[in-house]
Amino acid sequence: MSLVVIGTLAYDTIETVHDRREDVLGGSATHFAVAASHLVAPRLVAVVGTDFRSEHMQALEARGVDVAGVEVAQGATFRWSGRYEADWNKRHTLDTQLNVYEHFDPKLPEAYRDSAYVFLANASPSVQMRGLSQVEAPAFVVADTMNLWIETARDDLGELLRRVDAIVMNDEEARMLSGERNLIRAARRVLEMGPRYVVVKKGEHGAFVMGPDVHFSVPSYPVEDVVDPTGAGDSFAGGFMGFLALEGDHGPANLRRAMLHGTVTASFCVQGFGIAPLADAKEADLAARTDDLLCIVTV
Amino acid sequence: MSLVVIGTLAYDTIETVHDRREDVLGGSATHFAVAASHLVAPRLVAVVGTDFRSEHMQALEARGVDVAGVEVAQGATFRWSGRYEADWNKRHTLDTQLNVYEHFDPKLPEAYRDSAYVFLANASPSVQMRGLSQVEAPAFVVADTMNLWIETARDDLGELLRRVDAIVMNDEEARMLSGERNLIRAARRVLEMGPRYVVVKKGEHGAFVMGPDVHFSVPSYPVEDVVDPTGAGDSFAGGFMGFLALEGDHGPANLRRAMLHGTVTASFCVQGFGIAPLADAKEADLAARTDDLLCIVTV
Repeated sequence: MSLVVIGTLAYDTIETVHDRREDVLGGSATHFAVAASHLVAPRLVAVVGTDFRSEHMQALEARGVDVAGVEVAQGATFRWSGRYEADWNKRHTLDTQLNVYEHFDPKLPEAYRDSAYVFLANASPSVQMRGLSQVEAPAFVVADTMNLWIETARDDLGELLRRVDAIVMNDEEARMLSGERNLIRAARRVLEMGPRYVVVKKGEHGAFVMGPDVHFSVPSYPVEDVVDPTGAGDSFAGGFMGFLALEGDHGPANLRRAMLHGTVTASFCVQGFGIAPLADAKEADLAARTDDLLCIVTV
Repeated sequence: MSLVVIGTLAYDTIETVHDRREDVLGGSATHFAVAASHLVAPRLVAVVGTDFRSEHMQALEARGVDVAGVEVAQGATFRWSGRYEADWNKRHTLDTQLNVYEHFDPKLPEAYRDSAYVFLANASPSVQMRGLSQVEAPAFVVADTMNLWIETARDDLGELLRRVDAIVMNDEEARMLSGERNLIRAARRVLEMGPRYVVVKKGEHGAFVMGPDVHFSVPSYPVEDVVDPTGAGDSFAGGFMGFLALEGDHGPANLRRAMLHGTVTASFCVQGFGIAPLADAKEADLAARTDDLLCIVTV
């Protein structure tokens, strides 16, 4: 079934303890779409500046991503700069230049309005809701969020949480939103805020999904050569949603399988900068890691 | 089959952000034996002082623990004092009084020498090896260790690692011993040092076992009301080894099942101070959590 993502295309400057890269193609929607493109042809809604390089748009199209919803606005593309410590869980944002994204008002092409599966990548909850309201009859809506909106747009976020089927967040965001340190309590508290499901991402420690009919936990795929974790969370979401959309099934049994696919997808993302490692992965590579992961979790 | 543990009986003084308790019955062998006692009748080798309370010895015996190997020496019992931060993974040792444990020289009663399964709880590697050498033909030997021995007794630890079948350690110890930050690399490096299997415990993030014929990862059991994590690692080891000994099978399939039992056992330990929560757990409680955990990990 159809899948639409509303998010960012960006140029990232990334420092790790081993390397530094400038103007790497990134952004939530980029990583999500490339991940999902292994399973379906995702529809992309985003804004870029006039500096966005045509080869990057072509790279997305080459992956089967529908870029009809990408608006080109006067100005520069969103830029983010960050630094990771040796402990990959510790990330410092060095600079954020919203540029054309500052006035982003998502406009879904007519052809996108019948989308069944919807991913609202991290954005202000009001932008996320404006995007969502243009989808006629979504089957399953998942939103991401971040600490900024938890702190500054709590009411809007509350409204968003009542309108989505699932929220994906990392462990610290779940703790911040719920006010609970214990992650299980935190997840239960988030569920009380409205969504049917919550997916908590724990970086190298894996992820879990919780809802009225499912509680499933999966470890991260054992990657020995992490190069850059930027986009891992969005790649996870892309693999997760791509699998649900491919199957046209968001029942509890399929949510479990989708968690595996998200985990495997994210494992490729972290093995290089930008979209290359995931875009270059073959279906056989993904299938082999899915088999590996199944073996690692099967009692 | 028979199971012997060589370790400590201790009195702990524990501070958490919620509470403080003095002279709680603790120690590695205590937690291990109580955990294993749900499955087999573990044999216990340890030393206590003349201040060790008879009701505590009776509590162990009431659990079916064989205390013939507990030596009573002139002096005071080993005492440990520690404080936990709100993040349970952060523990500070406030005081350690070795007392009679300072000169602990494990002496296995004649009847223990035929033990099949052997757990060498955290101690100096030379003490661990002196204990091990008294077991005639062990089927499966597992050792624990800590940062102190990695730093101060590296050669002895290396020799120990070549004499055991498996080592259990927490994530930071695995990193310290291997010099590798990435836990998968760290585990592989530890395996190169000799043991057939390594079990890495990650606290609230679960645990994994790795070896030539198995790689299995399990999340922690979702406990919402952690009271005191002291002894969780030893309780895990007790549930793990108890299950292997009960089945008389340490093949790769049974190691996976034993990881579940260790996880469930540890989940009771953390719900109170001392041995009470685990000693009081009924077999039906353990079975129910094992079923829960199976459901949480099954795709």
